[in-house]
Amino acid sequence: MSPATAPLASHPDRLLPSDPVVRPIARRLYAAVRDLPIVSPHGHVDPRILLADEPFADPASLLIQPDHYVTRLLHAGGVSLASLGVGEGPLSEDRARAAWRLLCANWHLLRGTPVRFWFDGELAGIFGVTQRPSAANADALYDQIAGWLQDPAHRPRSLLDRFGIEFLATTDDPADDLAAHAALAADPTVTTRIAPTFRPDRYLELAAPGWAEAVKRLGVVADSDVGHYAGFLAALERRRRYFVEHGAVSTDHGHADAVTAPLKPADAAGIYSRALAGQVTAAEAAAFRRHMMLEMAQMSCEDGLVMTLHPGIHRNHHPPTLRRYGPDTGHDIPVAVEYTRALQPLLERYGTHPNLHLVLFTVDLDVLSREIAPLAGFYPSVYAGAPWWFLDNPTAIREFHGAVTEIAGLSRLSGFIDDTRAFCSIPARHDMSRRLDAGFLARLVAEHRLDEDEAVDSLVGLVVDQPRKVFKL
Amino acid sequence: MSPATAPLASHPDRLLPSDPVVRPIARRLYAAVRDLPIVSPHGHVDPRILLADEPFADPASLLIQPDHYVTRLLHAGGVSLASLGVGEGPLSEDRARAAWRLLCANWHLLRGTPVRFWFDGELAGIFGVTQRPSAANADALYDQIAGWLQDPAHRPRSLLDRFGIEFLATTDDPADDLAAHAALAADPTVTTRIAPTFRPDRYLELAAPGWAEAVKRLGVVADSDVGHYAGFLAALERRRRYFVEHGAVSTDHGHADAVTAPLKPADAAGIYSRALAGQVTAAEAAAFRRHMMLEMAQMSCEDGLVMTLHPGIHRNHHPPTLRRYGPDTGHDIPVAVEYTRALQPLLERYGTHPNLHLVLFTVDLDVLSREIAPLAGFYPSVYAGAPWWFLDNPTAIREFHGAVTEIAGLSRLSGFIDDTRAFCSIPARHDMSRRLDAGFLARLVAEHRLDEDEAVDSLVGLVVDQPRKVFKL
Amino acid sequence: MSPATAPLASHPDRLLPSDPVVRPIARRLYAAVRDLPIVSPHGHVDPRILLADEPFADPASLLIQPDHYVTRLLHAGGVSLASLGVGEGPLSEDRARAAWRLLCANWHLLRGTPVRFWFDGELAGIFGVTQRPSAANADALYDQIAGWLQDPAHRPRSLLDRFGIEFLATTDDPADDLAAHAALAADPTVTTRIAPTFRPDRYLELAAPGWAEAVKRLGVVADSDVGHYAGFLAALERRRRYFVEHGAVSTDHGHADAVTAPLKPADAAGIYSRALAGQVTAAEAAAFRRHMMLEMAQMSCEDGLVMTLHPGIHRNHHPPTLRRYGPDTGHDIPVAVEYTRALQPLLERYGTHPNLHLVLFTVDLDVLSREIAPLAGFYPSVYAGAPWWFLDNPTAIREFHGAVTEIAGLSRLSGFIDDTRAFCSIPARHDMSRRLDAGFLARLVAEHRLDEDEAVDSLVGLVVDQPRKVFKL
Repeated sequence: MSPATAPLASHPDRLLPSDPVVRPIARRLYAAVRDLPIVSPHGHVDPRILLADEPFADPASLLIQPDHYVTRLLHAGGVSLASLGVGEGPLSEDRARAAWRLLCANWHLLRGTPVRFWFDGELAGIFGVTQRPSAANADALYDQIAGWLQDPAHRPRSLLDRFGIEFLATTDDPADDLAAHAALAADPTVTTRIAPTFRPDRYLELAAPGWAEAVKRLGVVADSDVGHYAGFLAALERRRRYFVEHGAVSTDHGHADAVTAPLKPADAAGIYSRALAGQVTAAEAAAFRRHMMLEMAQMSCEDGLVMTLHPGIHRNHHPPTLRRYGPDTGHDIPVAVEYTRALQPLLERYGTHPNLHLVLFTVDLDVLSREIAPLAGFYPSVYAGAPWWFLDNPTAIREFHGAVTEIAGLSRLSGFIDDTRAFCSIPARHDMSRRLDAGFLARLVAEHRLDEDEAVDSLVGLVVDQPRKVFKL
Repeated sequence: MSPATAPLASHPDRLLPSDPVVRPIARRLYAAVRDLPIVSPHGHVDPRILLADEPFADPASLLIQPDHYVTRLLHAGGVSLASLGVGEGPLSEDRARAAWRLLCANWHLLRGTPVRFWFDGELAGIFGVTQRPSAANADALYDQIAGWLQDPAHRPRSLLDRFGIEFLATTDDPADDLAAHAALAADPTVTTRIAPTFRPDRYLELAAPGWAEAVKRLGVVADSDVGHYAGFLAALERRRRYFVEHGAVSTDHGHADAVTAPLKPADAAGIYSRALAGQVTAAEAAAFRRHMMLEMAQMSCEDGLVMTLHPGIHRNHHPPTLRRYGPDTGHDIPVAVEYTRALQPLLERYGTHPNLHLVLFTVDLDVLSREIAPLAGFYPSVYAGAPWWFLDNPTAIREFHGAVTEIAGLSRLSGFIDDTRAFCSIPARHDMSRRLDAGFLARLVAEHRLDEDEAVDSLVGLVVDQPRKVFKL
Repeated sequence: MSPATAPLASHPDRLLPSDPVVRPIARRLYAAVRDLPIVSPHGHVDPRILLADEPFADPASLLIQPDHYVTRLLHAGGVSLASLGVGEGPLSEDRARAAWRLLCANWHLLRGTPVRFWFDGELAGIFGVTQRPSAANADALYDQIAGWLQDPAHRPRSLLDRFGIEFLATTDDPADDLAAHAALAADPTVTTRIAPTFRPDRYLELAAPGWAEAVKRLGVVADSDVGHYAGFLAALERRRRYFVEHGAVSTDHGHADAVTAPLKPADAAGIYSRALAGQVTAAEAAAFRRHMMLEMAQMSCEDGLVMTLHPGIHRNHHPPTLRRYGPDTGHDIPVAVEYTRALQPLLERYGTHPNLHLVLFTVDLDVLSREIAPLAGFYPSVYAGAPWWFLDNPTAIREFHGAVTEIAGLSRLSGFIDDTRAFCSIPARHDMSRRLDAGFLARLVAEHRLDEDEAVDSLVGLVVDQPRKVFKL
């Protein structure tokens, strides 16, 4: 057994390669980017938290309850989601404290995972925690963090400044009025640029429950007659324009597959009408969605919004958990996805269009070298998205560089994407990326594949220049 | 050319990382588990060997003839299986010696493979061999090993004690009377717990040759009327109970795919009846088998037997070899297998049942990070089986940790599974695992991702606690 | 930004592992093979260049214009293929110099890629370049290289000698008269053996444009009546014989998949006749091609030509680029390919035939451990081809060894295959392989998995003995 109390792991060299030849180089590279601003072009932070700027309620509702990275590992280890408050509203102090105790008592479940690394970084960096969490010190840590949360310097906007976030994209429904974004943009005390992202998934899935109601609401918001296909396209175009006017730089797409396949306009219109009448088949709905990806790309060529693709997730794998706790509760599981053939129709049409930026994400390691690196190494529009979700651990990030960076080159990468809804984990996530990228480049230097001046230049590029370029900031 | 004679490789630091920062940590971690007992919850040792406890016949029939890991590599290098005695009964001394000479003369074929590592460990650790095998010393080594085999300390049961095997599972036919297990359990001089494993594959493949005869025999043994589907289910339940009474802790399933899909009972019964009448189609047989995986899971929820899945092997890829030498002769070849969608029906029903433990094995590296780690990182019933078969080499084991352990955490692993029919290789296989796991954890410590006390605790957990927990020992 | 001028990276230890324990071992291993002759059993050099032995025209038409590895990375970075002269004939000096400037100004696009490593090796090793290319020194470097190209010691045949190429295979159409090969073979001043390779792809794709005309021409050249299937087979057999008489050692096959599936001769003949009549379907054409792979294997058993398979590439992914610049211009993209089931019919029939050597290449990392290593580890006819195309970077080569070499053993590898049309990159490509293989083996030595004398023996084997054996030189 481990001792009941031990210092929190937060070594200045953490995640840098242990090889004594590589580490000093990695240290120098990391030092060049450690304090650069954070550019976060894709994520899931709720802008209303930043608008309200109220103190975070308690340690559990901030760090456990909404973060499926954390709750799923505890659940796998035997902790019920109910005991962590998943899917509920605000927790009473008793329940929040009980959830926190469960985390601390099960701290060993996080060993070796990036969740542990992020947590160490948050606890040490934001809340001054110096002890490794355990059943013994759970209450003391709870009190310590809860105390800091009442401190004005730990309110959302203060943290936003302290984190050094230059750009933060949220993810939003096309029908959203973006009032929070507008208010934040109008507030001169907010120096971070907080941009919405256009995520039209639900409007493109004609067979999904609630589609017809959603699209009707979209038509109202867009002031477009969505009773026919042309009006539906117009509604999307108008909402994209609205998003652009509110600072959006990208659209995000997360469907079951990456297939793009054109329909004749009349066929698309026919399917659309049948969907409105509640008579669409699953095959028709898939065909429509695959056709719409081409329409989205064409709109991007016109309005310049970057397209990001996050396909290949089987959502809500465990329906009993969905029914009791809601979506995004840790049981979305990847499936294999094909990109080469799937994206060919889109890339044939728009792959060399100067306005298109297409960022491809995957949770399939094999696809990285087989499909994404070859595509990004030819098409000027295609960028390889940073390792995503179940590939966000140190080994996968190193493998990403081996599979993508060594084939397509450093200039074809998106730069780091945190994709998180856990606001306080943003600095630790970007710090992890900087450390691992420094380690990757330091190894190239140590193997005499790159000179150190090139490595520094490339690392700075990855951290700030590349995301600014790829997302047109 | 290499010299004709050279010392046998058996360095105390073998397989530990070479990085001078990591190795001392790895040495300390390894020292903490080197001498712990062996827990072997899945393998293919024949219990009658242990019951009879007769001296092993000769070096070739012990170390070459029955081990397809060895014979396949020699075969690929141009050595005929006939010359190695594959598929035959006892070998004459001349033929055994000739087979042994072929191994030694072709020792270079094993370079870089785990087979070489295991062999080095067996030869040095069990038989005191100090020279690297070669054509020149083949006869001398044969005589040396043959001499030891006559020594009472090298009989099966003595080796079982010497190896420190605390628990050893065999793999058995549901109709087996388990007489050998009963006799071993009744013998107070046998301190190892030797448990059968319920492997019902052949009874669930309705279109396989001999199925009807096999199921009739099962009905007799179970005293159940297998002329209808309900009686078939009852027979399986009774035999599972019989296995539990004889110490079994798990069932093992090795079909072509991992698909689980429920049938209505009447449909399952209909297919079953058509199979008895010799009229089942391949599609019906597959549907029945996929349905039966759900029945097996439900029975596991009732009787508590752990389920292990080993799908995705194309058996007997080279029919001429099958006809001449029989099955398990080195030409089983993996194919891609899907788990996320395949297991969804099973996990929807039983994935959070407290009695279910489902251990998933794969020979597909890509599936580890894409499907198995995400599943094991949510479902409390799912454990990631140790790297299996063609993934049992050092690099694959490191990649397994990078893909699974870093995502799902150390607590979601099965612990090491040797899965071997080569009795003498058991210690070397477990030793390899301990060394590689020590190296993996030492690297985490060296990169300041884990404290050393946590690494020791985790390594001890992997070696003994985790298999005891996962297999309910 | 990096400095405008910097020394060219060409460190003697480049690509050797940085680990201070491993590097000295790797240095010793590399020294044992650094100067061994080059065996190149598969590539795309045009033999007429060697026959004519005229000075190369200019740096751009030698090093950029024909090399899709280079042009695709520049294209992805925003450089038009037109500006690089892709798909054109000889370039004017102005255009060649402009293309060269684009390469130098975009040198950073190659960072971290093998293209950069090869370029560094070519520039330093062949042309004495000591500065890192940049916009500032582009013209000076152009003049320096252009000057050397006028030097007799830099003509093709002099370089062939200087590179130490013992054997060089080209890739040729079955209807080719092989006049260049015959003339080179007849020239006593050419000491390199330059062999053609029989590449029948276009004759086996019945639905491809121009197939009927091509096969008619083949019939004429072979003096066989290709108006019926038997005559088609005879034409192929005769041309194979012709190739053997001109020194060929292998056939090469690059289709969409690896499937082999026998047809009844009458069915094959029927499809063939319908194809001649312009009435073949895509499904029939695929069936015919999959059948022909078995015929090719049978012919190999008879005439001894080694079969190499390069499946799984989606050719000409971007049709607008194909139309404007032609094929092989950087937009061939891999797709997933299956081998286990696909090759089963072929291996069932010929897998243990003593005359068959079947070398399997893949661009799918996952297939290496799942299918290729298991196949090569049983079938004496099957060899694992060196990492190919998008897997030719250092990390993928290390992963190849981890996936294939550690499972099937060093003796089942093809040895390095450069597969290049960039003549001047041949030494750098082989040097990269030697360095990486030395690093791999040095790590095995440092981890006490192999003795150093074995590692030296194995490395020499990989570099010269193994390709000689696999390709029957």
